[in-house]
Amino acid sequence: MKIVETKAAPNPRRVRIFLAEKGIELAFEQVDLMRGGLKTPEFSALNPFQRVPVLVLDDGTAIAETVAICRYFEELQPEPALFGQGALACARVEMWNRRMDLGLLASVAQAFRHLHPAMAELEVPQVAAWGEANKPRALEILRIMDQELAKQRYLAGDQYSIADITALVAIDFMKPARIERPPQLEHLARWYAEVAMRPSAKA
Amino acid sequence: MKIVETKAAPNPRRVRIFLAEKGIELAFEQVDLMRGGLKTPEFSALNPFQRVPVLVLDDGTAIAETVAICRYFEELQPEPALFGQGALACARVEMWNRRMDLGLLASVAQAFRHLHPAMAELEVPQVAAWGEANKPRALEILRIMDQELAKQRYLAGDQYSIADITALVAIDFMKPARIERPPQLEHLARWYAEVAMRPSAKA
Repeated sequence: MKIVETKAAPNPRRVRIFLAEKGIELAFEQVDLMRGGLKTPEFSALNPFQRVPVLVLDDGTAIAETVAICRYFEELQPEPALFGQGALACARVEMWNRRMDLGLLASVAQAFRHLHPAMAELEVPQVAAWGEANKPRALEILRIMDQELAKQRYLAGDQYSIADITALVAIDFMKPARIERPPQLEHLARWYAEVAMRPSAKA
Repeated sequence: MKIVETKAAPNPRRVRIFLAEKGIELAFEQVDLMRGGLKTPEFSALNPFQRVPVLVLDDGTAIAETVAICRYFEELQPEPALFGQGALACARVEMWNRRMDLGLLASVAQAFRHLHPAMAELEVPQVAAWGEANKPRALEILRIMDQELAKQRYLAGDQYSIADITALVAIDFMKPARIERPPQLEHLARWYAEVAMRPSAKA
């Protein structure tokens, strides 16, 4: 079993943090997405959607999509639970993970992909107006997170979850996307300091 | 317990189909998203991200995000399983549901939101170039789906799942988004005819 990834990209980091929290060690194989590594016939056979990471099982079965890989390991090794336990907790984790994924991380990624010169060959066409439109969206989501984190320790409640992993990775990805975290969001800052200090954050 | 939704929007339809497949009946309350219904203080208190649908439990707890609502009911009533059973099946459903959601439905929705005149007041700014960039992405995903559906009955394998629901809703949403399904994709057409004929598709 191995994971094919690009170490610097945000989605592979989500999987590495998830696995570190579970205490699961795996082999990693690097592919260079900045140099066309996702467009080769070999990689496209693993994942026709041409994205990293991909989990490759010993029989060759390929599982793509960050959250699908994480859920595979949650099923194999339920503890510590990172997707919640019980109907309501599961629903809350799913809700916040999607808000962080389709909302925050997607907005930050669109700003990066459509504005950063390094992405000109990979994001065709780069639409600068769309990149700019995503910056205020990311900031609005940070504001909502701050309100939520005034009431509870982690995004989905009292328990650390995959939603916190997605949010941490998205916020760290704001640096290359050139979006600044507003320092007045103090509850967000308290949460960030805590999750960024976990040993898994270095994964 | 009730669901607050806008009947004509694609994400509420995903939840209605999911509930119909489970045989679960619920009360629905309509909010008119085209007339600012998501931006009122009352609705924003339910979901600060201002999106439908929202599930409201009897104690007032609000669960937003389509897939979070579906997962809540999957946990409460596991049969028929629509998120897969067992680690590998769960991972495959998650992978395909995300490809259909973040890939196909998102591309179709971006084309609709950034090009349709009716969305000018809700999608600010409308970026036409970004809307156009999403049309070939949607078509490329349909092509990949056709290849997959040449090999298996449903998107995630032998069993109908939430991935098929998301894909059906996305394809039907191509009509207002003015994207045509290429008729030569015959395996996709075979699958579409089958899932669109299920009684749940009318929900």
